[in-house]
Amino acid sequence: MSQRVYIFDTTLRDGEQVPGCQLTTEEKVVVARELERLGVDIIEAGFPVSSPGDFRSVVEISKAVTEPTVCALSRAVKADIDAAADALKLAKRGRIHTGIGSSDIHIRNKFNSTREKILEQAVDAVRHARNLVDDVEFYAEDAGRADLEFLARLVESVIAAGATVVNIPDTTGYCLPQQYGERIKYIYDHVPNVDKAIISIHCHNDLGLATANSLAGIMNGARQVEVTINGIGERAGNTSLEEIVMAMKVHKDLGFVTGVDSTRLFPVSQLVSQMMRMPVQANKAIVGRNAFAHSSGIHQDGFLKHADTYEIMNPHEVGVPKSSIVLTARSGRHALKHRLELLGYKYDKPTLDGIYRRFLDLADVRKEVNDKDLMELVR
Amino acid sequence: MSQRVYIFDTTLRDGEQVPGCQLTTEEKVVVARELERLGVDIIEAGFPVSSPGDFRSVVEISKAVTEPTVCALSRAVKADIDAAADALKLAKRGRIHTGIGSSDIHIRNKFNSTREKILEQAVDAVRHARNLVDDVEFYAEDAGRADLEFLARLVESVIAAGATVVNIPDTTGYCLPQQYGERIKYIYDHVPNVDKAIISIHCHNDLGLATANSLAGIMNGARQVEVTINGIGERAGNTSLEEIVMAMKVHKDLGFVTGVDSTRLFPVSQLVSQMMRMPVQANKAIVGRNAFAHSSGIHQDGFLKHADTYEIMNPHEVGVPKSSIVLTARSGRHALKHRLELLGYKYDKPTLDGIYRRFLDLADVRKEVNDKDLMELVR
Repeated sequence: MSQRVYIFDTTLRDGEQVPGCQLTTEEKVVVARELERLGVDIIEAGFPVSSPGDFRSVVEISKAVTEPTVCALSRAVKADIDAAADALKLAKRGRIHTGIGSSDIHIRNKFNSTREKILEQAVDAVRHARNLVDDVEFYAEDAGRADLEFLARLVESVIAAGATVVNIPDTTGYCLPQQYGERIKYIYDHVPNVDKAIISIHCHNDLGLATANSLAGIMNGARQVEVTINGIGERAGNTSLEEIVMAMKVHKDLGFVTGVDSTRLFPVSQLVSQMMRMPVQANKAIVGRNAFAHSSGIHQDGFLKHADTYEIMNPHEVGVPKSSIVLTARSGRHALKHRLELLGYKYDKPTLDGIYRRFLDLADVRKEVNDKDLMELVR
Repeated sequence: MSQRVYIFDTTLRDGEQVPGCQLTTEEKVVVARELERLGVDIIEAGFPVSSPGDFRSVVEISKAVTEPTVCALSRAVKADIDAAADALKLAKRGRIHTGIGSSDIHIRNKFNSTREKILEQAVDAVRHARNLVDDVEFYAEDAGRADLEFLARLVESVIAAGATVVNIPDTTGYCLPQQYGERIKYIYDHVPNVDKAIISIHCHNDLGLATANSLAGIMNGARQVEVTINGIGERAGNTSLEEIVMAMKVHKDLGFVTGVDSTRLFPVSQLVSQMMRMPVQANKAIVGRNAFAHSSGIHQDGFLKHADTYEIMNPHEVGVPKSSIVLTARSGRHALKHRLELLGYKYDKPTLDGIYRRFLDLADVRKEVNDKDLMELVR
């Protein structure tokens, strides 16, 4: 039996706070509706106390979607939590996401506080939020660098205070996969009431390890993963929704499923990229322009014989129209022959060899040889 | 004592074969010289038999660099190997990289062959190459999906035939970190002559796991890692040089060092991106435009109090001029105050509160508030 992993999408909160990515309320509603269609479980819609515009966005998203839970961010501060609850009033299912720093670096340098005071503030915040809504998620900021014993005590306390979900973020993107997995395991092994809440993972990609860290968290017991479309987010961004979803889908043996309709991944990626004016690089996993393009002769030859030789996913599975073969100076005879046949030209071997030599000379000068070039070449 | 991991850069081979990335020989020489200055150990310069232009590029790079080994790709075919050896004649240190498919999918569907014949062809290719150069690397293509027992037998045979380096590529980007690490461990545990060669790792990023997989390979004994600048390469690309180098540098406890001068990472990334017309997305780890940008109020506040709260690397370490703070509707009072002070404005708290409210109204409309906007706001 596969276990369900909940997808918590924070494109509209951790993603939207990125320089240049700000959306209007109307644009956010469009994205939220697409996320609902994609099948995410929770939409983090904004940080209501931060600005009137963000407050309004959470209100409008609460009205616009019905299936996913709508979540609003707050610090562990009464005014923030009250604003979040107000903004969520019209949500069919609302969640307040509140929290505070948990590492000594954050406790000392950012809050000028102590572990005991932080613990008290966390518990007070969760209790206050639970008086306003039924679903309260607590984030232990910078948990990736927190003292493990203190972190376990903090998690235990906020669950006792009513937290339904506890988020263990690697805020700075510091952890290695094994380290992050061990942190989640430590929590499961040392928090007596851990079964009363869902443990959530929230990773950043500063060292390029967000997807691997998230998988390590899931494999050690976490059942919610916080992600963004295209991996956008603070600095090097968050875990990519599309990567973690497809990693679980390609590796069915792991035994995890999500509610995401993977055939919507590519269209949603395109929409978010265009609306936020954040181009996705060609070599981005799953959703990049080249993610399913085969260009070297060796690869094209293998791919044409049998797609499995170089593809672990069918591009249709993620909503990409088709695999593409691009003819360059690195392409082989087989790919050239295949393309020419698609264009209606069939040649015997010696003729094809001659065309291939002229093709290589042309391809060495040009970057790509398109169909028009090819037809001029064979005439 | 830290152990040295060799950096094998294939930007000019696996990277350059990507649609639209083709470079002229002169451009490749410029990149190769920058890679030498960056401190990579091996430069894979091209695939000489594939086209006359690629042959010439390997010749010119062989003449242009002196410190790194220059490597040329070939299939396990005599003509390929001969072309590679010819192209490398002027290299101070030349290496032929030859190989063949090792998974049953590749053996049956691509080569229409058998394991025994593949083994024989591999050994013949390595022997032939060793007659031409002293340094021969063998790649076991699609090793990520190969039968482990056969893979170990193949590795043992090519080492016995004279391979100095054996590359275990996860060609399709299929493996999870633990799986890939276990493959490398299996090889160390089951190949009796494994100490006679360096085991190399070569990962692809189809599931966003290339950096984690490469680290897993290194932690299980591999001592060469094949990478590209900006992670370019077939489909979703190869392991990013900048990510793997910085992961080892940030996590010194792992006990690995490279010869790379990390302060050259950002300039080389920019050069390759521009020359290959392959934009790096803003949220790319290490070298993206936003990799060191802090935009949310919570983050800006913490960052200004103490950079360590949100930064695990100093941007100077990777050659980025400075951390940046961008003012948006998600920015807090502290960041606004700091920016105003840099511009020469100091206010008491009530005045600042008034300015902050007007700032938020403006920021809700505009995407970013720049210094000019701020000065108009306070007048």
